[in-house]
Amino acid sequence: MIAIRDRVRFEETDLMAVVYHSRYLPWLEMGRVAYLRACGVDLNEMMAAGMLFPIREIHVRYIRSARFDDEYEVRTTLAGFNRAKLHFSYAVVHVATGKVLVEADTVNVFTDKNGKITRIGEPWFSRIQALYEQDRDADRV
Amino acid sequence: MIAIRDRVRFEETDLMAVVYHSRYLPWLEMGRVAYLRACGVDLNEMMAAGMLFPIREIHVRYIRSARFDDEYEVRTTLAGFNRAKLHFSYAVVHVATGKVLVEADTVNVFTDKNGKITRIGEPWFSRIQALYEQDRDADRV
Amino acid sequence: MIAIRDRVRFEETDLMAVVYHSRYLPWLEMGRVAYLRACGVDLNEMMAAGMLFPIREIHVRYIRSARFDDEYEVRTTLAGFNRAKLHFSYAVVHVATGKVLVEADTVNVFTDKNGKITRIGEPWFSRIQALYEQDRDADRV
Amino acid sequence: MIAIRDRVRFEETDLMAVVYHSRYLPWLEMGRVAYLRACGVDLNEMMAAGMLFPIREIHVRYIRSARFDDEYEVRTTLAGFNRAKLHFSYAVVHVATGKVLVEADTVNVFTDKNGKITRIGEPWFSRIQALYEQDRDADRV
Repeated sequence: MIAIRDRVRFEETDLMAVVYHSRYLPWLEMGRVAYLRACGVDLNEMMAAGMLFPIREIHVRYIRSARFDDEYEVRTTLAGFNRAKLHFSYAVVHVATGKVLVEADTVNVFTDKNGKITRIGEPWFSRIQALYEQDRDADRV
Repeated sequence: MIAIRDRVRFEETDLMAVVYHSRYLPWLEMGRVAYLRACGVDLNEMMAAGMLFPIREIHVRYIRSARFDDEYEVRTTLAGFNRAKLHFSYAVVHVATGKVLVEADTVNVFTDKNGKITRIGEPWFSRIQALYEQDRDADRV
Repeated sequence: MIAIRDRVRFEETDLMAVVYHSRYLPWLEMGRVAYLRACGVDLNEMMAAGMLFPIREIHVRYIRSARFDDEYEVRTTLAGFNRAKLHFSYAVVHVATGKVLVEADTVNVFTDKNGKITRIGEPWFSRIQALYEQDRDADRV
Repeated sequence: MIAIRDRVRFEETDLMAVVYHSRYLPWLEMGRVAYLRACGVDLNEMMAAGMLFPIREIHVRYIRSARFDDEYEVRTTLAGFNRAKLHFSYAVVHVATGKVLVEADTVNVFTDKNGKITRIGEPWFSRIQALYEQDRDADRV
Protein backbone atom coordinates (compact mmCIF):
# COMPACT_ATOMS: atom_id res chain seq x y z
CA MET A 1 0.00 0.00 0.00
CA ILE A 2 1.27 3.45 -0.90
CA ALA A 3 -0.14 6.47 0.95
CA ILE A 4 -0.08 10.10 -0.09
CA ARG A 5 -1.48 13.09 1.77
CA ASP A 6 -2.81 16.43 0.67
CA ARG A 7 -5.36 19.06 1.69
CA VAL A 8 -8.73 19.85 0.08
CA ARG A 9 -8.45 22.88 -2.21
CA PHE A 10 -11.10 25.58 -2.16
CA GLU A 11 -11.77 24.92 -5.87
CA GLU A 12 -12.63 21.29 -5.09
CA THR A 13 -15.72 22.20 -3.05
CA ASP A 14 -19.25 22.72 -4.36
CA LEU A 15 -22.33 24.61 -3.20
CA MET A 16 -23.11 21.90 -0.63
CA ALA A 17 -19.82 23.00 1.01
CA VAL A 18 -18.24 19.58 0.47
CA VAL A 19 -15.83 18.17 -2.10
CA TYR A 20 -17.63 17.77 -5.44
CA HIS A 21 -17.88 14.08 -6.27
CA SER A 22 -15.83 14.11 -9.49
CA ARG A 23 -12.93 15.81 -7.71
CA TYR A 24 -11.99 12.61 -5.88
CA LEU A 25 -11.01 10.97 -9.18
CA PRO A 26 -7.84 13.03 -9.67
CA TRP A 27 -6.86 12.13 -6.10
CA LEU A 28 -7.16 8.45 -6.99
CA GLU A 29 -4.98 9.12 -10.00
CA MET A 30 -2.42 10.83 -7.78
CA GLY A 31 -2.49 7.60 -5.75
CA ARG A 32 -1.85 5.48 -8.87
CA VAL A 33 0.95 7.77 -10.02
CA ALA A 34 2.56 7.58 -6.56
CA TYR A 35 2.20 3.79 -6.54
CA LEU A 36 3.86 3.47 -9.92
CA ARG A 37 6.58 5.92 -8.90
CA ALA A 38 7.21 3.73 -5.83
CA CYS A 39 7.66 0.82 -8.28
CA GLY A 40 10.18 2.87 -10.25
CA VAL A 41 7.71 3.39 -13.11
CA ASP A 42 7.57 6.98 -14.33
CA LEU A 43 4.50 7.80 -16.43
CA ASN A 44 6.30 10.50 -18.42
CA GLU A 45 9.00 7.99 -19.42
CA MET A 46 6.36 5.43 -20.37
CA MET A 47 4.50 7.96 -22.52
CA ALA A 48 7.79 9.03 -24.13
CA ALA A 49 8.26 5.35 -25.02
CA GLY A 50 4.88 5.37 -26.79
CA MET A 51 2.92 3.59 -24.06
CA LEU A 52 -0.33 5.03 -22.72
CA PHE A 53 -2.24 4.01 -19.60
CA PRO A 54 -5.92 4.94 -20.07
CA ILE A 55 -8.63 4.14 -17.56
CA ARG A 56 -11.29 1.63 -18.56
CA GLU A 57 -13.49 1.41 -15.52
CA ILE A 58 -14.04 3.19 -12.24
CA HIS A 59 -16.27 2.38 -9.31
CA VAL A 60 -16.54 4.82 -6.41
CA ARG A 61 -18.49 4.54 -3.16
CA TYR A 62 -18.98 7.87 -1.41
CA ILE A 63 -19.22 7.35 2.33
CA ARG A 64 -18.44 10.66 4.06
CA SER A 65 -17.82 14.19 2.83
CA ALA A 66 -14.54 16.05 2.90
CA ARG A 67 -14.50 19.82 3.38
CA PHE A 68 -12.22 22.71 2.48
CA ASP A 69 -8.75 22.45 3.99
CA ASP A 70 -9.32 18.95 5.42
CA GLU A 71 -6.25 16.78 5.21
CA TYR A 72 -6.85 13.48 3.44
CA GLU A 73 -4.80 10.37 2.76
CA VAL A 74 -5.15 8.25 -0.37
CA ARG A 75 -4.21 4.62 0.29
CA THR A 76 -3.56 2.80 -2.98
CA THR A 77 -3.18 -0.95 -3.36
CA LEU A 78 -2.58 -2.96 -6.50
CA ALA A 79 -5.45 -5.46 -6.31
CA GLY A 80 -4.52 -7.45 -9.39
CA PHE A 81 -2.56 -7.11 -12.60
CA ASN A 82 -1.20 -8.73 -15.71
CA ARG A 83 0.92 -7.41 -18.58
CA ALA A 84 -2.05 -5.62 -20.13
CA LYS A 85 -4.08 -4.36 -17.18
CA LEU A 86 -3.75 -2.97 -13.62
CA HIS A 87 -6.55 -3.09 -11.07
CA PHE A 88 -6.07 -0.66 -8.19
CA SER A 89 -8.13 -0.35 -4.99
CA TYR A 90 -8.24 2.82 -2.92
CA ALA A 91 -9.40 4.17 0.38
CA VAL A 92 -9.46 7.92 0.88
CA VAL A 93 -9.25 8.62 4.59
CA HIS A 94 -9.93 11.79 6.58
CA VAL A 95 -6.68 12.24 8.49
CA ALA A 96 -7.99 14.04 11.59
CA THR A 97 -10.65 11.40 12.34
CA GLY A 98 -9.29 8.31 10.57
CA LYS A 99 -12.69 7.82 8.93
CA VAL A 100 -13.05 6.55 5.38
CA LEU A 101 -14.42 9.15 2.96
CA VAL A 102 -14.40 7.17 -0.26
CA GLU A 103 -13.62 3.64 -1.43
CA ALA A 104 -12.83 3.01 -5.06
CA ASP A 105 -11.60 0.58 -7.69
CA THR A 106 -10.14 1.35 -11.07
CA VAL A 107 -9.02 -0.67 -14.07
CA ASN A 108 -6.37 0.80 -16.37
CA VAL A 109 -4.89 -0.82 -19.46
CA PHE A 110 -1.70 -0.32 -21.41
CA THR A 111 -2.16 0.79 -25.00
CA ASP A 112 0.01 2.07 -27.81
CA LYS A 113 -0.52 5.57 -29.23
CA ASN A 114 -3.36 4.30 -31.43
CA GLY A 115 -5.32 2.97 -28.45
CA LYS A 116 -4.51 -0.66 -29.21
CA ILE A 117 -4.13 -2.79 -26.08
CA THR A 118 -0.54 -3.73 -25.63
CA ARG A 119 1.47 -5.73 -23.10
CA ILE A 120 3.87 -3.92 -20.86
CA GLY A 121 7.52 -4.88 -21.32
CA GLU A 122 10.58 -4.84 -19.12
CA PRO A 123 11.82 -3.30 -16.92
CA TRP A 124 8.33 -2.00 -16.05
CA PHE A 125 6.58 -5.30 -15.52
CA SER A 126 9.15 -6.68 -13.08
CA ARG A 127 9.14 -3.47 -11.09
CA ILE A 128 5.37 -3.54 -10.67
CA GLN A 129 5.47 -7.23 -9.79
CA ALA A 130 8.11 -6.63 -7.12
CA LEU A 131 6.05 -4.02 -5.26
CA TYR A 132 2.88 -6.10 -5.65
CA GLU A 133 4.52 -9.12 -4.03
CA GLN A 134 6.02 -7.04 -1.26
CA ASP A 135 2.56 -5.54 -0.58
CA ARG A 136 0.88 -8.95 -0.57
CA ASP A 137 3.50 -10.36 1.81
CA ALA A 138 3.04 -7.37 4.11
CA ASP A 139 -0.70 -8.13 4.20
CA ARG A 140 -0.04 -11.71 5.22
CA VAL A 141 1.94 -10.77 8.31
CA MET B 1 -35.02 8.59 -21.57
CA ILE B 2 -33.97 12.24 -21.55
CA ALA B 3 -31.23 13.37 -23.92
CA ILE B 4 -29.10 16.49 -23.75
CA ARG B 5 -26.37 17.61 -26.14
CA ASP B 6 -23.26 19.71 -25.73
CA ARG B 7 -19.75 20.07 -27.13
CA VAL B 8 -16.44 19.11 -25.50
CA ARG B 9 -14.75 22.16 -23.98
CA PHE B 10 -11.02 22.73 -24.44
CA GLU B 11 -10.59 22.66 -20.64
CA GLU B 12 -12.05 19.14 -20.50
CA THR B 13 -9.16 17.61 -22.47
CA ASP B 14 -5.91 16.28 -21.05
CA LEU B 15 -2.41 15.72 -22.38
CA MET B 16 -3.53 12.55 -24.19
CA ALA B 17 -5.69 14.96 -26.28
CA VAL B 18 -8.92 13.30 -25.10
CA VAL B 19 -11.49 14.18 -22.46
CA TYR B 20 -10.01 13.58 -19.00
CA HIS B 21 -11.88 10.73 -17.33
CA SER B 22 -13.30 12.67 -14.37
CA ARG B 23 -14.80 15.27 -16.70
CA TYR B 24 -17.55 12.88 -17.81
CA LEU B 25 -19.05 12.93 -14.30
CA PRO B 26 -20.41 16.48 -14.53
CA TRP B 27 -21.98 15.52 -17.87
CA LEU B 28 -23.80 12.68 -16.15
CA GLU B 29 -24.97 15.15 -13.54
CA MET B 30 -26.22 17.46 -16.27
CA GLY B 31 -28.17 14.44 -17.51
CA ARG B 32 -29.68 13.86 -14.05
CA VAL B 33 -30.55 17.52 -13.66
CA ALA B 34 -32.24 17.52 -17.08
CA TYR B 35 -34.13 14.33 -16.21
CA LEU B 36 -35.43 15.82 -12.98
CA ARG B 37 -36.28 19.07 -14.74
CA ALA B 38 -38.30 17.05 -17.26
CA CYS B 39 -40.17 15.57 -14.26
CA GLY B 40 -40.88 19.07 -13.00
CA VAL B 41 -38.37 18.70 -10.17
CA ASP B 42 -36.06 21.70 -9.80
CA LEU B 43 -32.94 21.03 -7.71
CA ASN B 44 -32.68 24.65 -6.54
CA GLU B 45 -36.26 24.48 -5.20
CA MET B 46 -35.54 21.16 -3.50
CA MET B 47 -32.42 22.56 -1.86
CA ALA B 48 -34.34 25.66 -0.77
CA ALA B 49 -36.78 23.25 0.91
CA GLY B 50 -33.90 21.73 2.87
CA MET B 51 -33.54 18.58 0.77
CA LEU B 52 -30.17 17.52 -0.61
CA PHE B 53 -29.42 14.92 -3.25
CA PRO B 54 -25.87 13.61 -2.74
CA ILE B 55 -24.30 10.86 -4.81
CA ARG B 56 -23.52 7.57 -3.04
CA GLU B 57 -22.08 5.44 -5.79
CA ILE B 58 -20.85 5.77 -9.34
CA HIS B 59 -19.73 3.17 -11.83
CA VAL B 60 -18.31 4.28 -15.18
CA ARG B 61 -17.13 2.18 -18.12
CA TYR B 62 -14.92 4.12 -20.54
CA ILE B 63 -15.31 2.74 -24.06
CA ARG B 64 -14.15 5.37 -26.54
CA SER B 65 -12.53 8.79 -26.19
CA ALA B 66 -14.13 12.13 -26.93
CA ARG B 67 -12.01 14.98 -28.27
CA PHE B 68 -12.13 18.78 -28.21
CA ASP B 69 -15.20 20.25 -29.88
CA ASP B 70 -16.88 16.84 -30.43
CA GLU B 71 -20.62 16.98 -29.96
CA TYR B 72 -21.90 14.43 -27.44
CA GLU B 73 -25.32 13.33 -26.23
CA VAL B 74 -26.02 12.19 -22.67
CA ARG B 75 -28.95 9.72 -22.56
CA THR B 76 -30.28 9.41 -19.03
CA THR B 77 -32.72 6.78 -17.83
CA LEU B 78 -34.15 6.27 -14.36
CA ALA B 79 -33.27 2.61 -13.77
CA GLY B 80 -34.96 2.29 -10.38
CA PHE B 81 -36.14 4.41 -7.50
CA ASN B 82 -37.93 4.65 -4.23
CA ARG B 83 -38.68 7.56 -1.90
CA ALA B 84 -35.10 7.59 -0.56
CA LYS B 85 -32.95 6.74 -3.56
CA LEU B 86 -32.69 7.20 -7.35
CA HIS B 87 -30.65 4.92 -9.59
CA PHE B 88 -29.86 6.45 -12.98
CA SER B 89 -28.24 4.76 -16.00
CA TYR B 90 -26.47 6.72 -18.73
CA ALA B 91 -24.98 6.35 -22.16
CA VAL B 92 -22.80 9.15 -23.50
CA VAL B 93 -22.84 8.97 -27.28
CA HIS B 94 -20.60 10.63 -29.88
CA VAL B 95 -23.12 12.42 -32.07
CA ALA B 96 -21.24 12.37 -35.40
CA THR B 97 -20.66 8.59 -35.33
CA GLY B 98 -23.41 7.35 -33.02
CA LYS B 99 -20.82 5.36 -31.06
CA VAL B 100 -21.00 4.98 -27.28
CA LEU B 101 -18.21 6.77 -25.43
CA VAL B 102 -19.14 5.96 -21.86
CA GLU B 103 -21.73 3.91 -19.98
CA ALA B 104 -22.46 4.70 -16.36
CA ASP B 105 -24.68 4.11 -13.36
CA THR B 106 -25.17 6.32 -10.34
CA VAL B 107 -27.03 6.07 -7.05
CA ASN B 108 -28.17 9.28 -5.35
CA VAL B 109 -30.07 9.57 -2.10
CA PHE B 110 -32.24 12.23 -0.55
CA THR B 111 -30.97 13.67 2.71
CA ASP B 112 -31.76 16.56 4.98
CA LYS B 113 -29.21 19.32 5.60
CA ASN B 114 -27.47 17.19 8.24
CA GLY B 115 -26.89 14.35 5.80
CA LYS B 116 -29.58 12.12 7.30
CA ILE B 117 -31.34 9.96 4.72
CA THR B 118 -34.85 11.21 4.22
CA ARG B 119 -37.81 10.22 2.09
CA ILE B 120 -38.89 12.52 -0.70
CA GLY B 121 -42.38 13.97 -0.31
CA GLU B 122 -45.01 15.27 -2.66
CA PRO B 123 -45.30 16.68 -5.24
CA TRP B 124 -41.79 15.50 -6.13
CA PHE B 125 -42.30 11.77 -5.76
CA SER B 126 -45.37 11.61 -8.01
CA ARG B 127 -43.66 13.66 -10.67
CA ILE B 128 -40.66 11.35 -10.78
CA GLN B 129 -42.94 8.31 -10.82
CA ALA B 130 -44.93 9.70 -13.74
CA LEU B 131 -41.86 10.12 -15.97
CA TYR B 132 -40.48 6.75 -14.90
CA GLU B 133 -43.67 4.96 -15.91
CA GLN B 134 -43.88 6.83 -19.18
CA ASP B 135 -40.27 5.84 -19.94
CA ARG B 136 -40.89 2.20 -19.07
CA ASP B 137 -43.98 2.09 -21.24
CA ALA B 138 -42.05 3.67 -24.12
CA ASP B 139 -39.45 0.89 -23.79
CA ARG B 140 -42.15 -1.76 -24.10
CA VAL B 141 -43.41 -0.55 -27.43
CA MET C 1 -19.90 40.79 -31.10
CA ILE C 2 -20.62 37.10 -30.84
CA ALA C 3 -22.86 35.86 -28.03
CA ILE C 4 -23.20 32.34 -26.65
CA ARG C 5 -25.44 31.13 -23.85
CA ASP C 6 -25.20 28.30 -21.36
CA ARG C 7 -26.22 27.42 -17.82
CA VAL C 8 -24.05 27.20 -14.70
CA ARG C 9 -23.11 23.60 -13.94
CA PHE C 10 -23.26 22.26 -10.40
CA GLU C 11 -19.55 21.42 -10.60
CA GLU C 12 -18.73 25.08 -11.30
CA THR C 13 -19.92 26.25 -7.88
CA ASP C 14 -17.86 26.44 -4.70
CA LEU C 15 -18.59 26.42 -0.99
CA MET C 16 -19.72 30.04 -1.11
CA ALA C 17 -22.56 28.73 -3.34
CA VAL C 18 -21.40 30.82 -6.31
CA VAL C 19 -19.36 30.05 -9.41
CA TYR C 20 -15.72 29.55 -8.44
CA HIS C 21 -13.65 32.37 -9.93
CA SER C 22 -11.41 30.26 -12.18
CA ARG C 23 -14.45 28.65 -13.79
CA TYR C 24 -15.27 31.79 -15.76
CA LEU C 25 -12.07 31.39 -17.80
CA PRO C 26 -13.30 28.39 -19.80
CA TRP C 27 -16.48 30.36 -20.56
CA LEU C 28 -14.35 33.14 -22.02
CA GLU C 29 -12.56 30.53 -24.07
CA MET C 30 -15.89 29.20 -25.31
CA GLY C 31 -16.59 32.80 -26.37
CA ARG C 32 -13.29 33.00 -28.30
CA VAL C 33 -13.89 29.64 -29.96
CA ALA C 34 -17.38 30.76 -31.00
CA TYR C 35 -16.00 34.05 -32.31
CA LEU C 36 -13.39 32.29 -34.41
CA ARG C 37 -15.95 29.76 -35.61
CA ALA C 38 -18.15 32.70 -36.71
CA CYS C 39 -15.12 33.92 -38.72
CA GLY C 40 -14.81 30.50 -40.33
CA VAL C 41 -11.71 29.66 -38.31
CA ASP C 42 -11.79 26.19 -36.78
CA LEU C 43 -9.26 25.65 -33.99
CA ASN C 44 -8.95 21.93 -34.68
CA GLU C 45 -8.04 22.65 -38.31
CA MET C 46 -5.52 25.28 -37.23
CA MET C 47 -3.91 22.87 -34.75
CA ALA C 48 -3.83 20.17 -37.45
CA ALA C 49 -1.93 22.69 -39.59
CA GLY C 50 0.66 23.05 -36.80
CA MET C 51 -0.57 26.39 -35.47
CA LEU C 52 -1.26 26.87 -31.76
CA PHE C 53 -3.10 29.70 -30.05
CA PRO C 54 -1.88 29.97 -26.44
CA ILE C 55 -3.03 32.65 -24.03
CA ARG C 56 -0.46 35.21 -22.90
CA GLU C 57 -2.43 37.46 -20.60
CA ILE C 58 -5.80 37.57 -18.89
CA HIS C 59 -7.45 40.28 -16.86
CA VAL C 60 -10.77 39.58 -15.15
CA ARG C 61 -12.97 41.91 -13.09
CA TYR C 62 -15.52 40.04 -10.96
CA ILE C 63 -18.61 42.18 -10.45
CA ARG C 64 -21.50 39.91 -9.46
CA SER C 65 -21.79 36.20 -8.67
CA ALA C 66 -23.48 33.56 -10.78
CA ARG C 67 -25.22 30.63 -9.12
CA PHE C 68 -26.08 27.04 -10.02
CA ASP C 69 -28.40 26.73 -13.01
CA ASP C 70 -28.30 30.47 -13.83
CA GLU C 71 -28.32 31.14 -17.54
CA TYR C 72 -25.43 33.35 -18.67
CA GLU C 73 -24.40 34.96 -21.94
CA VAL C 74 -20.79 35.49 -22.98
CA ARG C 75 -20.41 38.49 -25.31
CA THR C 76 -17.10 38.38 -27.11
CA THR C 77 -15.59 41.22 -29.13
CA LEU C 78 -12.29 41.34 -30.97
CA ALA C 79 -10.76 44.47 -29.46
CA GLY C 80 -7.62 44.47 -31.58
CA PHE C 81 -5.47 42.15 -33.64
CA ASN C 82 -2.57 41.69 -35.98
CA ARG C 83 -1.12 38.62 -37.69
CA ALA C 84 0.59 37.47 -34.48
CA LYS C 85 -1.85 38.37 -31.71
CA LEU C 86 -5.59 38.65 -30.93
CA HIS C 87 -6.96 40.79 -28.12
CA PHE C 88 -10.52 39.86 -27.10
CA SER C 89 -12.83 41.68 -24.68
CA TYR C 90 -15.73 39.98 -22.93
CA ALA C 91 -18.77 40.67 -20.85
CA VAL C 92 -20.47 37.76 -19.10
CA VAL C 93 -24.09 38.71 -18.48
CA HIS C 94 -26.72 37.15 -16.23
CA VAL C 95 -29.56 36.49 -18.67
CA ALA C 96 -32.52 36.79 -16.28
CA THR C 97 -31.49 40.22 -14.95
CA GLY C 98 -29.28 41.57 -17.75
CA LYS C 99 -26.62 42.43 -15.17
CA VAL C 100 -22.92 42.08 -15.88
CA LEU C 101 -21.23 39.33 -13.87
CA VAL C 102 -17.70 39.57 -15.20
CA GLU C 103 -15.70 41.74 -17.58
CA ALA C 104 -12.49 40.43 -19.05
CA ASP C 105 -9.71 40.90 -21.57
CA THR C 106 -7.39 38.30 -22.99
CA VAL C 107 -4.38 38.30 -25.29
CA ASN C 108 -3.63 35.19 -27.34
CA VAL C 109 -0.79 34.70 -29.78
CA PHE C 110 -0.18 32.37 -32.67
CA THR C 111 2.77 30.03 -32.29
CA ASP C 112 4.18 27.00 -34.04
CA LYS C 113 4.41 23.66 -32.25
CA ASN C 114 7.67 24.73 -30.56
CA GLY C 115 6.06 27.76 -29.00
CA LYS C 116 7.74 30.22 -31.39
CA ILE C 117 5.55 33.22 -32.22
CA THR C 118 4.38 32.99 -35.78
CA ARG C 119 2.19 35.07 -38.07
CA ILE C 120 -1.15 33.72 -39.11
CA GLY C 121 -1.54 33.09 -42.84
CA GLU C 122 -4.43 32.97 -45.23
CA PRO C 123 -7.30 32.23 -45.40
CA TRP C 124 -7.44 32.69 -41.60
CA PHE C 125 -6.25 36.27 -41.38
CA SER C 126 -8.74 37.62 -43.94
CA ARG C 127 -11.60 35.81 -42.25
CA ILE C 128 -10.80 37.31 -38.87
CA GLN C 129 -10.38 40.74 -40.43
CA ALA C 130 -13.75 40.50 -42.18
CA LEU C 131 -15.66 39.83 -38.93
CA TYR C 132 -13.65 42.46 -37.07
CA GLU C 133 -14.59 45.13 -39.63
CA GLN C 134 -18.21 44.06 -39.66
CA ASP C 135 -18.27 44.30 -35.83
CA ARG C 136 -16.65 47.71 -35.85
CA ASP C 137 -19.09 49.00 -38.45
CA ALA C 138 -22.03 47.63 -36.43
CA ASP C 139 -20.74 49.58 -33.40
CA ARG C 140 -20.72 52.78 -35.40
CA VAL C 141 -24.38 52.59 -36.33
CA MET D 1 7.02 36.13 0.86
CA ILE D 2 5.46 32.74 1.49
CA ALA D 3 6.35 29.84 -0.79
CA ILE D 4 4.50 26.58 -1.32
CA ARG D 5 5.41 23.69 -3.59
CA ASP D 6 3.41 21.06 -5.38
CA ARG D 7 3.47 18.96 -8.55
CA VAL D 8 1.33 19.35 -11.69
CA ARG D 9 -1.56 16.90 -11.67
CA PHE D 10 -2.48 14.97 -14.80
CA GLU D 11 -5.97 16.50 -14.67
CA GLU D 12 -4.45 20.00 -14.89
CA THR D 13 -3.06 19.46 -18.40
CA ASP D 14 -4.86 20.07 -21.68
CA LEU D 15 -4.56 18.78 -25.23
CA MET D 16 -1.54 21.01 -25.85
CA ALA D 17 0.16 18.83 -23.17
CA VAL D 18 0.66 21.82 -20.87
CA VAL D 19 -1.20 23.10 -17.82
CA TYR D 20 -4.53 24.60 -18.91
CA HIS D 21 -4.47 28.36 -18.26
CA SER D 22 -7.35 28.49 -15.75
CA ARG D 23 -5.70 25.82 -13.60
CA TYR D 24 -3.06 28.26 -12.34
CA LEU D 25 -5.75 30.24 -10.49
CA PRO D 26 -6.35 27.64 -7.78
CA TRP D 27 -2.56 27.51 -7.26
CA LEU D 28 -2.58 31.26 -6.63
CA GLU D 29 -5.40 30.73 -4.16
CA MET D 30 -3.36 28.03 -2.43
CA GLY D 31 -0.65 30.68 -2.16
CA ARG D 32 -3.08 33.19 -0.59
CA VAL D 33 -4.40 30.58 1.83
CA ALA D 34 -0.83 29.66 2.85
CA TYR D 35 0.05 33.35 3.28
CA LEU D 36 -2.94 33.94 5.52
CA ARG D 37 -2.21 30.75 7.45
CA ALA D 38 1.34 32.03 8.02
CA CYS D 39 -0.28 35.20 9.45
CA GLY D 40 -2.38 33.04 11.78
CA VAL D 41 -5.53 33.74 9.78
CA ASP D 42 -7.59 30.62 9.08
CA LEU D 43 -10.16 31.04 6.29
CA ASN D 44 -12.50 28.45 7.80
CA GLU D 45 -12.56 30.36 11.09
CA MET D 46 -13.18 33.63 9.27
CA MET D 47 -16.06 32.13 7.30
CA ALA D 48 -17.49 30.67 10.51
CA ALA D 49 -17.43 34.23 11.88
CA GLY D 50 -19.52 35.37 8.89
CA MET D 51 -16.70 36.96 6.94
CA LEU D 52 -16.15 36.11 3.29
CA PHE D 53 -13.12 36.89 1.12
CA PRO D 54 -14.22 36.99 -2.53
CA ILE D 55 -11.91 37.87 -5.40
CA ARG D 56 -12.59 41.12 -7.28
CA GLU D 57 -9.86 41.22 -9.86
CA ILE D 58 -7.19 38.98 -11.31
CA HIS D 59 -4.42 39.69 -13.76
CA VAL D 60 -2.26 36.83 -15.02
CA ARG D 61 0.73 36.92 -17.38
CA TYR D 62 1.54 33.50 -18.85
CA ILE D 63 5.26 33.27 -19.59
CA ARG D 64 6.22 29.60 -19.83
CA SER D 65 4.26 26.34 -19.75
CA ALA D 66 4.26 23.77 -16.98
CA ARG D 67 3.86 20.09 -17.80
CA PHE D 68 2.55 16.99 -16.04
CA ASP D 69 4.47 16.08 -12.89
CA ASP D 70 6.63 19.25 -12.97
CA GLU D 71 7.29 20.61 -9.51
CA TYR D 72 6.32 24.26 -9.12
CA GLU D 73 6.64 26.86 -6.40
CA VAL D 74 4.09 29.60 -5.76
CA ARG D 75 5.69 32.69 -4.21
CA THR D 76 3.06 34.93 -2.67
CA THR D 77 3.63 38.48 -1.47
CA LEU D 78 1.15 40.88 0.04
CA ALA D 79 1.59 43.90 -2.24
CA GLY D 80 -0.80 46.20 -0.41
CA PHE D 81 -3.73 46.07 1.96
CA ASN D 82 -6.18 47.92 4.12
CA ARG D 83 -9.02 46.75 6.36
CA ALA D 84 -11.30 46.08 3.38
CA LYS D 85 -8.99 44.77 0.68
CA LEU D 86 -5.86 42.65 0.12
CA HIS D 87 -3.70 42.90 -2.98
CA PHE D 88 -1.44 39.89 -3.49
CA SER D 89 1.32 39.43 -6.09
CA TYR D 90 2.55 36.02 -7.19
CA ALA D 91 5.29 34.34 -9.15
CA VAL D 92 4.86 30.69 -10.07
CA VAL D 93 8.30 29.21 -10.63
CA HIS D 94 9.37 25.95 -12.27
CA VAL D 95 11.48 24.34 -9.55
CA ALA D 96 13.89 22.33 -11.71
CA THR D 97 14.94 25.30 -13.86
CA GLY D 98 14.13 28.27 -11.61
CA LYS D 99 12.27 29.90 -14.52
CA VAL D 100 9.10 31.92 -14.00
CA LEU D 101 5.99 30.28 -15.45
CA VAL D 102 3.36 32.82 -14.47
CA GLU D 103 3.18 36.22 -12.79
CA ALA D 104 -0.10 37.38 -11.31
CA ASP D 105 -1.89 39.93 -9.17
CA THR D 106 -5.18 39.56 -7.37
CA VAL D 107 -7.45 41.81 -5.35
CA ASN D 108 -9.72 40.26 -2.72
CA VAL D 109 -12.12 42.08 -0.45
CA PHE D 110 -13.75 41.24 2.85
CA THR D 111 -17.53 41.03 2.78
CA ASP D 112 -20.29 39.89 5.05
CA LYS D 113 -22.56 36.98 4.07
CA ASN D 114 -24.70 39.31 1.94
CA GLY D 115 -21.75 40.42 -0.13
CA LYS D 116 -21.53 43.84 1.51
CA ILE D 117 -17.95 45.14 1.79
CA THR D 118 -16.86 45.05 5.38
CA ARG D 119 -13.73 45.96 7.30
CA ILE D 120 -11.72 43.19 8.86
CA GLY D 121 -11.51 43.31 12.66
CA GLU D 122 -9.06 42.10 15.22
CA PRO D 123 -7.16 39.90 15.76
CA TRP D 124 -7.04 39.32 11.98
CA PHE D 125 -5.93 42.77 10.87
CA SER D 126 -2.94 42.95 13.23
CA ARG D 127 -1.80 39.51 12.21
CA ILE D 128 -1.81 40.38 8.53
CA GLN D 129 -0.07 43.66 9.23
CA ALA D 130 2.67 41.93 11.21
CA LEU D 131 3.60 39.57 8.35
CA TYR D 132 3.34 42.38 5.81
CA GLU D 133 5.83 44.51 7.73
CA GLN D 134 8.16 41.61 8.28
CA ASP D 135 8.08 40.89 4.51
CA ARG D 136 8.71 44.51 3.63
CA ASP D 137 11.64 44.70 6.01
CA ALA D 138 13.07 41.49 4.57
CA ASP D 139 12.92 43.08 1.10
CA ARG D 140 14.90 46.07 2.30
CA VAL D 141 17.87 44.02 3.46
